[in-house]
Amino acid sequence: MAAAESRFLHACRLRPADATPVWFMRQAGRYMPEYRAMRSRHSLLEICHTPELAAQVTLQPVDALGVDAAILFADILLPLEPMGVEVAFVSGEGPLIRNPVRSRADMAALHTVEARDGLGYILESVRLVRAALAGRVPLIGFAGAPFTLATYLVGGGGAARDAMQAKRLMVADAGTWHALMERLAHVVADYLAAQVEAGADAVQLFDSWVGALSPDDYRQYVFPYSRAVLREVSALGVPVIHFGTGTATLLPLMREAGGTVIGLDWRTPLDVGWRTVGTDVGIQGNLDPSALFAPAPELERRVRAVLARAGGRPGHIFNLGHGILPETPVANVKRVVELVHELTAATALREA
Amino acid sequence: MAAAESRFLHACRLRPADATPVWFMRQAGRYMPEYRAMRSRHSLLEICHTPELAAQVTLQPVDALGVDAAILFADILLPLEPMGVEVAFVSGEGPLIRNPVRSRADMAALHTVEARDGLGYILESVRLVRAALAGRVPLIGFAGAPFTLATYLVGGGGAARDAMQAKRLMVADAGTWHALMERLAHVVADYLAAQVEAGADAVQLFDSWVGALSPDDYRQYVFPYSRAVLREVSALGVPVIHFGTGTATLLPLMREAGGTVIGLDWRTPLDVGWRTVGTDVGIQGNLDPSALFAPAPELERRVRAVLARAGGRPGHIFNLGHGILPETPVANVKRVVELVHELTAATALREA
Repeated sequence: MAAAESRFLHACRLRPADATPVWFMRQAGRYMPEYRAMRSRHSLLEICHTPELAAQVTLQPVDALGVDAAILFADILLPLEPMGVEVAFVSGEGPLIRNPVRSRADMAALHTVEARDGLGYILESVRLVRAALAGRVPLIGFAGAPFTLATYLVGGGGAARDAMQAKRLMVADAGTWHALMERLAHVVADYLAAQVEAGADAVQLFDSWVGALSPDDYRQYVFPYSRAVLREVSALGVPVIHFGTGTATLLPLMREAGGTVIGLDWRTPLDVGWRTVGTDVGIQGNLDPSALFAPAPELERRVRAVLARAGGRPGHIFNLGHGILPETPVANVKRVVELVHELTAATALREA
Repeated sequence: MAAAESRFLHACRLRPADATPVWFMRQAGRYMPEYRAMRSRHSLLEICHTPELAAQVTLQPVDALGVDAAILFADILLPLEPMGVEVAFVSGEGPLIRNPVRSRADMAALHTVEARDGLGYILESVRLVRAALAGRVPLIGFAGAPFTLATYLVGGGGAARDAMQAKRLMVADAGTWHALMERLAHVVADYLAAQVEAGADAVQLFDSWVGALSPDDYRQYVFPYSRAVLREVSALGVPVIHFGTGTATLLPLMREAGGTVIGLDWRTPLDVGWRTVGTDVGIQGNLDPSALFAPAPELERRVRAVLARAGGRPGHIFNLGHGILPETPVANVKRVVELVHELTAATALREA
């Protein structure tokens, strides 16, 4: 097993590594010329639906940036398609759902499926990536958490971001909400398990929009479903990263829900967040994605600030606080990988 | 002075009142039939630019709901117009700025003006509302905080919400950022002072999108400008409410920046937020706006939960955690006003 592979997995298990591992949410995407070249020939859904193309895109940042993990290239909404949800991508607007769920009748119209039914093409991507990586770095599988999938499914995309439609359904018709979340939890857990069986070395549960909730609402309407997913997946023996944004007041509950590693956004200083969730789990984060537009000295200052808050403690995985932005300069992303490795290499730490 | 008037102002000063005062952000707006009737005849900018219409809209919720304060009806971007910023409203998209500021040259092209130049029509609205209220309830003036104005001014509207463009400018060209914030702070402070001189009994500084920042970035790039505004306005002797969303990790710094009352969104439980900012300032909030879609028993449970966290302590102003949503049922908004008054009336508290 290569050094870089053990680096990421060691950190997930709070074991010392030769340097702090680093990868980026949305490390494959529009900011990379390799990706734009492929997008000039194929739509986003074509890439996702074609295992050879999805695998190529997954590998692009591993080759170009030297990150310590690959993350499967797939859209967060794909597992909804076998349920009869019609997902479309409109340029500049992100995902749209043509038949959003706003009522019990809408929910009842969803197909009952095992998650992996109809998602074989994603599992094939996982197998192709694993084979191509040949142990260079581990592969992270992922899924949206039930709440975050519900924000799209209820909101219909576009304005889904503020999750207001989902919260309206939640407070106005709790029965439908709980039934929907139970179905989503089942689909998500099965989808993640299938990725692990296909070869994913770790998984990340993205609860990207969970920060729209108060702690009381999270506990009552979301926690049971995230916990069910996280328990089921953790039982498979791979590390599980549990991530959300805007989670400052939710972190103790997210930790309780589960995860080997908790992912932070930049709003919570890393040392504060790590203390809050407990230093017996790993921590991932948390450079602000906008920092990647800074001039070199300022970028380095910001990388050093995150590392200083991590304090060299085993269990830190360097990442952004959310996904890479489309216009980000590739050179700056690459520079962050180099900086993290240089500044945390075992020799550097010994000399510090 | 009417009871309702003293109720709000007493709470701002941490003095006991006959009941907890209640008003709502965006209490005048699309959810009200009176407002929609006016909008069928006039554009948003026409209403804002015509003192008689703006005053009528400001008064609508006072008459219809029985709230304990009026808040000036005006768009947050109007003070930018005299600087040469072209503001437009596109249906369903919110405000758009046709000439966003992305560089030092863009910033230098802004006109240097005293804020109240060209804003006389808003001050006339203030005078008309004051006269029409005749002391029934106090009038709250308001302005966007420098950072939140910058998110629109740099982002151009639309995608301004996530403040990413503003943060890019901030990290990429700190010199331009600081110069822009200094100009905005000057405009905002002067605009608020003019509203107080025209008769506003209190003011609220809306830093609605400040939750996009880490505490370190807030301290360095925003705090000095918010503090300058808050100091200048506080010196005029009226209560100042300092509000933002997503502020869980920023609250100590926001308190330090200033404000007689700190406004919370729903993500921070009210008791936790009040302890964090200190019980020597007032607290405003923090029902989730989506709660207004709940059936009656659930709505009452949620109102009681906010009041329980306030603990009957003088200094609580009941409000939402952000603005009323467009499709909110008016009856539910009215019910919250009644509930807050019933549940906190002096007799109710004595019997509790």
